[in-house]
Amino acid sequence: MTAEHSHFDAMWAELQPIGRDGRTAGYRRFALTDEDLTLREWFAGECGALGLDLVEDRMGNQWAWWGDPDATAGVVTGSHLDSVPDGGAYDGPLGVVSSLAAVKRMQDNGFRPDRPIGIVNFGDEEGARFGVACAGSRVITGAMTTDRALALKDADGVTMAEAMQRAGRSTGIGRDEETLRRVAAFVELHVEQGRALADLDPATSAVAVGTDIWPHGRWRADFAGRADHAGTTALGDRADAMLEAAAFVQAAREEAARRDGESRCVATVGKLDVQPGGVNAIPSHVTAWLDARSSDERLVLDTIAALERRFPGALSQESWTPTTPFDASLCARLQRTLGAHTPMLGTGAGHDAGILANAGVPTAMLFVRNPTGSSHTPEEFAEADDCHRGVDALVKVLEDLASV
Amino acid sequence: MTAEHSHFDAMWAELQPIGRDGRTAGYRRFALTDEDLTLREWFAGECGALGLDLVEDRMGNQWAWWGDPDATAGVVTGSHLDSVPDGGAYDGPLGVVSSLAAVKRMQDNGFRPDRPIGIVNFGDEEGARFGVACAGSRVITGAMTTDRALALKDADGVTMAEAMQRAGRSTGIGRDEETLRRVAAFVELHVEQGRALADLDPATSAVAVGTDIWPHGRWRADFAGRADHAGTTALGDRADAMLEAAAFVQAAREEAARRDGESRCVATVGKLDVQPGGVNAIPSHVTAWLDARSSDERLVLDTIAALERRFPGALSQESWTPTTPFDASLCARLQRTLGAHTPMLGTGAGHDAGILANAGVPTAMLFVRNPTGSSHTPEEFAEADDCHRGVDALVKVLEDLASV
Repeated sequence: MTAEHSHFDAMWAELQPIGRDGRTAGYRRFALTDEDLTLREWFAGECGALGLDLVEDRMGNQWAWWGDPDATAGVVTGSHLDSVPDGGAYDGPLGVVSSLAAVKRMQDNGFRPDRPIGIVNFGDEEGARFGVACAGSRVITGAMTTDRALALKDADGVTMAEAMQRAGRSTGIGRDEETLRRVAAFVELHVEQGRALADLDPATSAVAVGTDIWPHGRWRADFAGRADHAGTTALGDRADAMLEAAAFVQAAREEAARRDGESRCVATVGKLDVQPGGVNAIPSHVTAWLDARSSDERLVLDTIAALERRFPGALSQESWTPTTPFDASLCARLQRTLGAHTPMLGTGAGHDAGILANAGVPTAMLFVRNPTGSSHTPEEFAEADDCHRGVDALVKVLEDLASV
Repeated sequence: MTAEHSHFDAMWAELQPIGRDGRTAGYRRFALTDEDLTLREWFAGECGALGLDLVEDRMGNQWAWWGDPDATAGVVTGSHLDSVPDGGAYDGPLGVVSSLAAVKRMQDNGFRPDRPIGIVNFGDEEGARFGVACAGSRVITGAMTTDRALALKDADGVTMAEAMQRAGRSTGIGRDEETLRRVAAFVELHVEQGRALADLDPATSAVAVGTDIWPHGRWRADFAGRADHAGTTALGDRADAMLEAAAFVQAAREEAARRDGESRCVATVGKLDVQPGGVNAIPSHVTAWLDARSSDERLVLDTIAALERRFPGALSQESWTPTTPFDASLCARLQRTLGAHTPMLGTGAGHDAGILANAGVPTAMLFVRNPTGSSHTPEEFAEADDCHRGVDALVKVLEDLASV
């Protein structure tokens, strides 16, 4: 550890215990909970220490400004502090902590930005509590309506509106033109979530430029059977929905694997609902949720078409998002700043950066090397050296973008 | 409908609406609920109309006596009135209603029993609320301890002890010698739960004698993976627990089918737990519950052994019950009474009759033809004519057994 990274390391250590589950060692930092409040207060304190001006937008996302973004639109970095259930330490917080460390470094270096620099802490990026990812950025860009957001319910039936009231927050949420007008460009730093950089040389490839978010979609597959008694119904008399669902799980993997290659293609069944769900009852209905993504839109749609042929009538589409390209000239500028050796990388994960890009904000991302590719688990990890390289890269990028 | 069956039909019609769910048309008659109380009051009323003496045992099971069982141990029939979630109308109530109809017929016929005749309404046979089947008979026979029963919890975390208190019932439950001493023999009439009688001639085979309960067991199969991100983790880098679980579901069916023949063999995965259970998370752990039964003990154990070879270390046994034979001479006597054409039938389902048999009570069953084999679903059904034949058979059996 070098002295210039002590600020990053100190902040990282402070965040470690917040919202960590003692049993799983994973994080449970959900929107509008006590943990969320603690993290927001921590963020406000760090921004105050850097002399930044903190404002909240109409959705309660926190924006900390170095300079006046109402005079000149600024360059924004940042990410989110919430987590998936039993998530890792890096997804989100790495971007926020790196942003704070980068601003302090620039200040310590005596850098004088020609345009404002902002750090954003987006709320509820993972959607772990209310089921919709990137709720913070969706609402301020209008990608999700006010009514839909306020009516979202958590697992206990608490609406987002009720949760906001309990947390003492305003429910006057909605698209926020004033906030968006202040953002000339957005660069989100994030831990890489696969092994795309794992086997490359960290000296040159610990940080990649994110170029686009893969096309991705979610489908629901329904299989019907008959809920007979598991002890008394002969095998030949059964309609067991679980058997078809099991075949579907395997077919989804098979069809994705058949198309996976130079262009990546993945398909996952991560959630099942089995009715009636008794150990001694033959399943009368199984619903399987399929998540499918690819760096090439055609491959996802081909995978789905193949599954539709094999399981006629079973699939219904729940969501579909075509490729979200980040700003090509911004991406090229980041690579020029960081060096031609810098990998250019698409990602299969969704991010607030994708929501902002779709809203017309010039956007790019920086990905920090993940040695194992684990993400959304307590094993999620990045080497300290690579995290520090991420801060170094962010400093370079911000100094470039904030200079006339 | 003949006049002699009008009592059965009237009672059957009275029970129809109690605990029926308007949406699913299935029954939700769970232990210690308002529906349960209504059914118990209905039973008490019917017994009162027949002039029977109603007593409750230490577990609250209802026993209605025609004659004094403390003078001479009696012949008991009956069944239960509770249901599985969204169960059918016949499983349980057919036995109770047939018993009441049979006693009334014998009284109308001027029959004078040489030994007492009893009708029992066992509580909580399905175990739908507290998870343990045949809780009523298990407690009074000592097959389940008082402490374990009282500590059982329902899905809302309410213990059986709390539920009993709320229902105004005593928690002084336990093995009940006095009640067991009164039972010289037990014959439970029940709807058949497969298609064993479906294709036979109802004129001769609407009613079968139940000879034994198949050996059956429950196993838990655990599959471990790693909860990576479903969008960013390449297929080759995944450990997806769902894939192995899906293979297990299919293998269980395959191994049972390989052994199914003259001796039946069935295996079912009716319940799955998927962790973390997010649509965009690769499953880190899947637990599958396997129910396996056969008319031949060896075939179940062979099926399990084959699965253990294919999925080393995955299976752990949760329960195992060897064949429960009913009383051979009692079974033979029932067949003599009903005619040599009467089918003799083992069953893959558990019953209070099995618990009493294991406690040393001479026990047999009567099964009424099920034309479709559906059971534990709203489609569960028996023809009215077959139900009436069941009552006729029960009258013959009781008149024989209650005569010196």
